[in-house]
Amino acid sequence: MITEIAIVEIVVGKEAEFEVALATAVKTILPQAKGYINFRLTRGIERTNVYTFLINWDTLEDHTIEFRNSDLFVQWRTQIGSFFLNPPQIEHWTTVFKA
Amino acid sequence: MITEIAIVEIVVGKEAEFEVALATAVKTILPQAKGYINFRLTRGIERTNVYTFLINWDTLEDHTIEFRNSDLFVQWRTQIGSFFLNPPQIEHWTTVFKA
Repeated sequence: MITEIAIVEIVVGKEAEFEVALATAVKTILPQAKGYINFRLTRGIERTNVYTFLINWDTLEDHTIEFRNSDLFVQWRTQIGSFFLNPPQIEHWTTVFKA
Repeated sequence: MITEIAIVEIVVGKEAEFEVALATAVKTILPQAKGYINFRLTRGIERTNVYTFLINWDTLEDHTIEFRNSDLFVQWRTQIGSFFLNPPQIEHWTTVFKA
């Protein structure tokens, strides 16, 4: 399992509308994606128009190759991309330990 | 509950030593901190000397006021600070939803 962490800055004033659109997109699109495990949305306390997506995938390639080259990704960005203030900063992580 | 996410860049070549020191620091120091819930360490796939600390706290102030002004914070930075390549980037987040 790997974790995608995306830092996503949203147009100021559009946060509530974005959260609704995202909830729908997560529910309808991601479960169709190969290797998708689960999703968590957090909102910034210091920067309230910035969100993190924490998305668990079976493998890195399930996200970077399978999902990004699929029609699902087109649907995903169609439903939420207009809220983005700039391109999301996305990196992938492996869990070393939990305590 | 709030989540602290810290992006921590480590001196290249010191990653294994850092992980050992951090595991000890997490185990011995954090459970003494008021409001501390749990800790997860992830390591970057794209940038292998970069880690995220995902730390859950009862309240923002448990981290930013209570912990940072405590002797525990001095111990924490003493045990792991020498591995940092630069000051960690730290922000706090509230969970909006999980799916």
